[in-house]
Amino acid sequence: MTVLRILNEKGRDVVTTTPAMKLIDVAKLLHQKNIGAVLITEGESIRGILSERDIARAISVHGEEALSKTAGDCMTAHVVTCTPEDSIGHVMQVMTTGRFRHVPVIEKNRLAGLVSIGDVVKRRIEDVEKEAEQIREYIAT
Amino acid sequence: MTVLRILNEKGRDVVTTTPAMKLIDVAKLLHQKNIGAVLITEGESIRGILSERDIARAISVHGEEALSKTAGDCMTAHVVTCTPEDSIGHVMQVMTTGRFRHVPVIEKNRLAGLVSIGDVVKRRIEDVEKEAEQIREYIAT
Ligand SMILES: NC(=O)C1=CN([C@@H]2O[C@H](COP(=O)(O)OP(=O)(O)OC[C@H]3O[C@@H](n4cnc5c(N)ncnc54)[C@H](O)[C@@H]3O)[C@@H](O)[C@H]2O)C=CC1
Ligand SMILES: NC(=O)C1=CN([C@@H]2O[C@H](COP(=O)(O)OP(=O)(O)OC[C@H]3O[C@@H](n4cnc5c(N)ncnc54)[C@H](O)[C@@H]3O)[C@@H](O)[C@H]2O)C=CC1
Repeated sequence: MTVLRILNEKGRDVVTTTPAMKLIDVAKLLHQKNIGAVLITEGESIRGILSERDIARAISVHGEEALSKTAGDCMTAHVVTCTPEDSIGHVMQVMTTGRFRHVPVIEKNRLAGLVSIGDVVKRRIEDVEKEAEQIREYIAT
Repeated sequence: MTVLRILNEKGRDVVTTTPAMKLIDVAKLLHQKNIGAVLITEGESIRGILSERDIARAISVHGEEALSKTAGDCMTAHVVTCTPEDSIGHVMQVMTTGRFRHVPVIEKNRLAGLVSIGDVVKRRIEDVEKEAEQIREYIAT
């Protein structure tokens, strides 16, 4: 059970923006796309990740002024990534230990997707259903 | 595997506030407690829930003015709850279908805790480890 399976279902597109975008426009982007985090890139390079939590924190610290700060000011610069070959269990562990909900996927040094905590939970439900079915089949034969 | 097990480990305290709190102070509360949502109550009654996503949405729609709106203005009024007897699988399903990350727990008509998507994932990791151990024991005997 690997990250590749999630990517095959949800696709490989990643919503990104540049470090120069204002926080208010990042909030609009998240809202419009109905997502909780955006990857901050410059050309092919990952510069950081900016989540709803970073927005709440910036507002908590800077008040109204937070909204005219840039993504570069408010992002988390250290981004932990995974590969398509990583197991879903490994990604769960990374999310729990690091307290991240979003993990970009890197393949051959290039951005190849993004998995979120909700993606992982959704797959877990599917697995439980499949296991139950296999047990039923096993009992029936 | 029920919600009760999560409550027994993480405790039953729930961070709450009233509908009158300003959004900027809700952001401070979330930041200070390092949590992603706060339950909005009046006396013993649940009025709504306010998450990081609600803050990002309010900013996206209202800009700076969002910060002086109240929790009551910005919260999600329809709160889906669970009971201590519900299975963790059921709560995963509720979170995935409803797109909530936080589900308050109600026991005998009273607030008895709150479980988040991260709580559920953490327990899932523990279960996988336990299963692996049982398989090793089974093989050894
Ligand atoms: N019913 C379903 O199919 C799904 C439901 N959910 C639920 O929605 C709620 C929020 O989900 P979370 O995973 O916490 O966060 P989220 O709202 O950021 O993620 C939602 C979806 O958007 C994708 N996504 C997020 N940011 C992205 C980006 N920058 N580029 C490309 N894709 C991106 C995620 O991979 C996920 O598939 C949770 O309650 C979760 O259970 C989450 C994923 C799928
Ligand atoms: N290492 C650990 O023990 C844990 C790690 N996490 C990770 O942290 C990140 C954020 O976690 P999420 O579950 O999405 O949200 P979250 O940050 O809101 O939840 C963190 C913890 O706070 C608790 N909590 C949240 N709001 C509460 C409230 N109003 N009253 C009482 N308790 C409340 C939750 O039940 C959970 O135990 C995720 O990446 C997750 O994997 C989450 C829970 C435990």
